[in-house]
Amino acid sequence: MSEAILTISSKNYSSWSLRGWLMTKFSGLPFEEKAVSIDDPAMRAELLLLSSSFLIPNLEHNGLKIWDTLAIGEYLNEIRPDAHLLPSDLERRSRCRSISGEMHSGFGPMRSALPMNLKGDFPNFKVWARAQADIDRITAIWREHLGLYGGPFLLGERSLADAMYAPVVTRLRTYHVPVDAKCSAYCDAIMAMPEMTEWTEAAKAEPEDMEELEVEF
Amino acid sequence: MSEAILTISSKNYSSWSLRGWLMTKFSGLPFEEKAVSIDDPAMRAELLLLSSSFLIPNLEHNGLKIWDTLAIGEYLNEIRPDAHLLPSDLERRSRCRSISGEMHSGFGPMRSALPMNLKGDFPNFKVWARAQADIDRITAIWREHLGLYGGPFLLGERSLADAMYAPVVTRLRTYHVPVDAKCSAYCDAIMAMPEMTEWTEAAKAEPEDMEELEVEF
Repeated sequence: MSEAILTISSKNYSSWSLRGWLMTKFSGLPFEEKAVSIDDPAMRAELLLLSSSFLIPNLEHNGLKIWDTLAIGEYLNEIRPDAHLLPSDLERRSRCRSISGEMHSGFGPMRSALPMNLKGDFPNFKVWARAQADIDRITAIWREHLGLYGGPFLLGERSLADAMYAPVVTRLRTYHVPVDAKCSAYCDAIMAMPEMTEWTEAAKAEPEDMEELEVEF
Repeated sequence: MSEAILTISSKNYSSWSLRGWLMTKFSGLPFEEKAVSIDDPAMRAELLLLSSSFLIPNLEHNGLKIWDTLAIGEYLNEIRPDAHLLPSDLERRSRCRSISGEMHSGFGPMRSALPMNLKGDFPNFKVWARAQADIDRITAIWREHLGLYGGPFLLGERSLADAMYAPVVTRLRTYHVPVDAKCSAYCDAIMAMPEMTEWTEAAKAEPEDMEELEVEF
């Protein structure tokens, strides 16, 4: 067994890095982090949604290279089944994949208008209609699943879906987007995970030169 | 076992419908098709990429509802393992998921600039730079995997990844986008599948009122 290597980018800005990193943490697989600088032109294009996303996150393990967030989640679930990245119950597992897939392929307006920015704090941010429509759909997903399974996480126990939606939680905080009590409790549960504390602290300590990207969003 | 119901939309325009339908066909699961009219405002918004995608494709089976294309693929692979929607070899399976995931979350410029349109034929279509960059990445994926596994499909045998990329094949044909011999042979293999013949004939026979959408792309 070779050591796993997870390639990620800015901890402050890269929501896909956070998703892949959380999944790997949840799985319990020991791994080494490798950072790609956002000064790299290909990396910049990917972060700015100008190119397809295959540089990060990227997991190398036992000679395999897996470069899509959901593919990484499915791989980790296969090699570390006891971590239950996917729920063992078929209905929950299918819902976990459906809502993770919806996050994976959708919500472009929300993602580009409210980029992840853990250092940022924008109390009077104006959310435009299409981004708000995305947020409304996301909070509807949250309410439905917290209602079905009783929380504290989307499928009851922590799963891959929580890694997928964690960056949204940080956006709602950064841009002061109001949500109802049930969704707010879910956001608290996400932010209280020790993995989120570790990531957030690292993001806030990230060197200043990473921040030049901000002006381009 | 109740009959499965797959909800799809226009066979001429809806690339996600084609992906979900092909996967279900490949799986061998008997199913009934249910069509959502593109006159439905929510359906129009989804087809025009104005809203997140959860109406189609949608698979109902044994009381479960699965509404994301990759989630449908994973579900079908679980209940019909002998259909090998995902390759049994771990490396191929990981690559199948990585390239399927890349199609699932990416290539927005190509998707919006060259919408699927099986009835269309545009010999002098100008492909703008960002859509071309997507096509370049897609054909690089195809060449790499056809090279690794020898074809005729992306992972050797037909898999979920071929269902994911089939709409791209139709776009290359509709808009007369030139590709190299290896990619062209792959396009031929996709179009020669009996399932593609069945779908394409149905798309071409689709009533005229479905076509009003075209002007808005």
